[in-house]
Amino acid sequence: MREYSSQDYHYMTRAIALAKRGLYTTSPNPRVGCVIVNNGEVVGEGYHRKAGEGHAEVNALAQAKALAKGATVYVTLEPCSHYGRTPPCAKALIDAQVSKVICAMVDPNPTVAGNGIAMLKTAGIACSAGLLGDEAKALNPGFITLMEQKRPYVRCKLAASLDGKTAMASGESQWITSENSRQDVQRLRAQSCAIITGADSVITDNARMSVRKEQLADNDYPLPEIRQPIRIVIDSQQRLTPDLAIFSDKAPVLVFTKGPVNKVQWPDFVEHIECPTVESQSGHKIDLAFVLDTLAARGLNDILIEAGATLCGAFIERHLVDELVLYQAPMLLGNEAKSLVNMPSVTTLAQASKLTFKDVRQVGNDLRLTLSIEK
Amino acid sequence: MREYSSQDYHYMTRAIALAKRGLYTTSPNPRVGCVIVNNGEVVGEGYHRKAGEGHAEVNALAQAKALAKGATVYVTLEPCSHYGRTPPCAKALIDAQVSKVICAMVDPNPTVAGNGIAMLKTAGIACSAGLLGDEAKALNPGFITLMEQKRPYVRCKLAASLDGKTAMASGESQWITSENSRQDVQRLRAQSCAIITGADSVITDNARMSVRKEQLADNDYPLPEIRQPIRIVIDSQQRLTPDLAIFSDKAPVLVFTKGPVNKVQWPDFVEHIECPTVESQSGHKIDLAFVLDTLAARGLNDILIEAGATLCGAFIERHLVDELVLYQAPMLLGNEAKSLVNMPSVTTLAQASKLTFKDVRQVGNDLRLTLSIEK
Repeated sequence: MREYSSQDYHYMTRAIALAKRGLYTTSPNPRVGCVIVNNGEVVGEGYHRKAGEGHAEVNALAQAKALAKGATVYVTLEPCSHYGRTPPCAKALIDAQVSKVICAMVDPNPTVAGNGIAMLKTAGIACSAGLLGDEAKALNPGFITLMEQKRPYVRCKLAASLDGKTAMASGESQWITSENSRQDVQRLRAQSCAIITGADSVITDNARMSVRKEQLADNDYPLPEIRQPIRIVIDSQQRLTPDLAIFSDKAPVLVFTKGPVNKVQWPDFVEHIECPTVESQSGHKIDLAFVLDTLAARGLNDILIEAGATLCGAFIERHLVDELVLYQAPMLLGNEAKSLVNMPSVTTLAQASKLTFKDVRQVGNDLRLTLSIEK
Repeated sequence: MREYSSQDYHYMTRAIALAKRGLYTTSPNPRVGCVIVNNGEVVGEGYHRKAGEGHAEVNALAQAKALAKGATVYVTLEPCSHYGRTPPCAKALIDAQVSKVICAMVDPNPTVAGNGIAMLKTAGIACSAGLLGDEAKALNPGFITLMEQKRPYVRCKLAASLDGKTAMASGESQWITSENSRQDVQRLRAQSCAIITGADSVITDNARMSVRKEQLADNDYPLPEIRQPIRIVIDSQQRLTPDLAIFSDKAPVLVFTKGPVNKVQWPDFVEHIECPTVESQSGHKIDLAFVLDTLAARGLNDILIEAGATLCGAFIERHLVDELVLYQAPMLLGNEAKSLVNMPSVTTLAQASKLTFKDVRQVGNDLRLTLSIEK
């Protein structure tokens, strides 16, 4: 079972492509794809679209019907073994009398974690895991990180000139990166469970921090609806007011404050949470780890930070960021312009954040660098 | 003649590869390669190694001998038509009775500029130009820019963290970029006619700014000797002293000063030139265009700037740079660290330098971005 054929790679690649259809709708559930092959023919395909709807295996079985009997099943994540919102997929596969199940990875969910595979094997179904495992893991960084480490996967988006500047000293900053890059950011947003920003961005730019569906139109994912990420605002000084654009679409906004929450009349889709603080060089600051823990406790596992130099720098300084996505505009703004990340505690090279390039590509006239951060 | 066969592309690609062998020795002469093909067989190959030695065509003819008769000649630059240090190559090709000459580009040298091709055609030899022209032009940016625009091609090398920082506020800067990147810089130096640096770099880092041959060993160019680029130091305040490392190898150093040259006893390989000044926000500054004009007048056509944020910024601000080579280390140093380029006159986005990505590649753990600058 450990040696896979080129056919196996082919069908698992297809299953991964199916899983990606849920990129903008599935989370916080894992994105999963499934292909059922009988006698060299695909008899069923499925993916998990969103929480509450059928799992990938169940959708593929529904297509395969009686042809599932004796078939080989390719699934990007170990079939579940527990009764959750749906009955266990392992049982459905057993009932359908498939003969073989190939998984890309074992489910990191401790309530599954090998039990699905064990159930299948006990029922006499040949079963293995690991085919295209890295590709499958990349589908669900948030889900896996939350399951394995009880914390969300945190991506920080930044945009700057080649010399790491975001705006002129005057504040002038419009259009440093290209339209294509801003469109690409919409895709990052759409795949996140939540977006963290700062009061400054919300007030100064009057940003809504929501996904604009029309900006996603040129991709190949079906979009029956947009699952808007939850907006999170770090508002230490409670400077937000209900008239800001971020509150205009009446979708959930979670506001983290430093002191006790002021008695302001807020609509019911706005929730305030008072944060504990940590001491820093510049006084007591909101404990950003508490913010992430709060999001994790709510099952929000895939987080995008889109904020200014101070808040982004604070998350990075505290080693709370897993991945950096940096859009680089081919410009030089000079030393008087504003810096990308403020990290007052970093004064020696040894304290500097060390990263590793994961992906580099051209987006319009810009370059998009994706890096993992050493934690 | 205008339609080329795949064989033509093949042999011209080979001629370009031959030309590249002169990458570290040929300039300020153009790098040229030549392949002679008779009846589908390569009968001669050659390249121009350095000024004073045989041209590519002459070297290839010497190999081909009588087999050149009736052959097709692939050459990356139009054969010369004038008596210079060597007799004209066009004449040598005519004498050898070749039947066809395919050039990648017309010679931009106004004393040739089509005359070579005309000579060949007059002698009844079929002749064309343009096959892989862009690739051929990329061999000789300095030679072409000097011939066409009477100024050198100027490359500015920079190295920084992702957030455009070169050193901590304390000055700590060792090893921001990797060993591989520093080795790559040696290759940039080796292909340049001259390296411009500032007094600060020479004094603070006690830099020699020479090519270390052992750092070039892992490349595929034959290196019988190193043609050390001429070192140019911008020393407005005349702070250089003869004991600095840059003077230790007794190779030519050209020093540009702001005021009249002080009466210091300098060894004869050091030359001082007093520069005119231009007015800037921060007083009278050396006219950097004069520096480049001086180098152009001496035939130095391929210039590398390796300097600090102020001098690099000044060249960029004055629109004197053609190409930026930026080594990016995967680190974040934070806002208190030192900025990459100082450009005090740039205060609006409209004044910012606009560039275009030409090449992006990984060098060790770093990224090397090559960009052209709008002038």
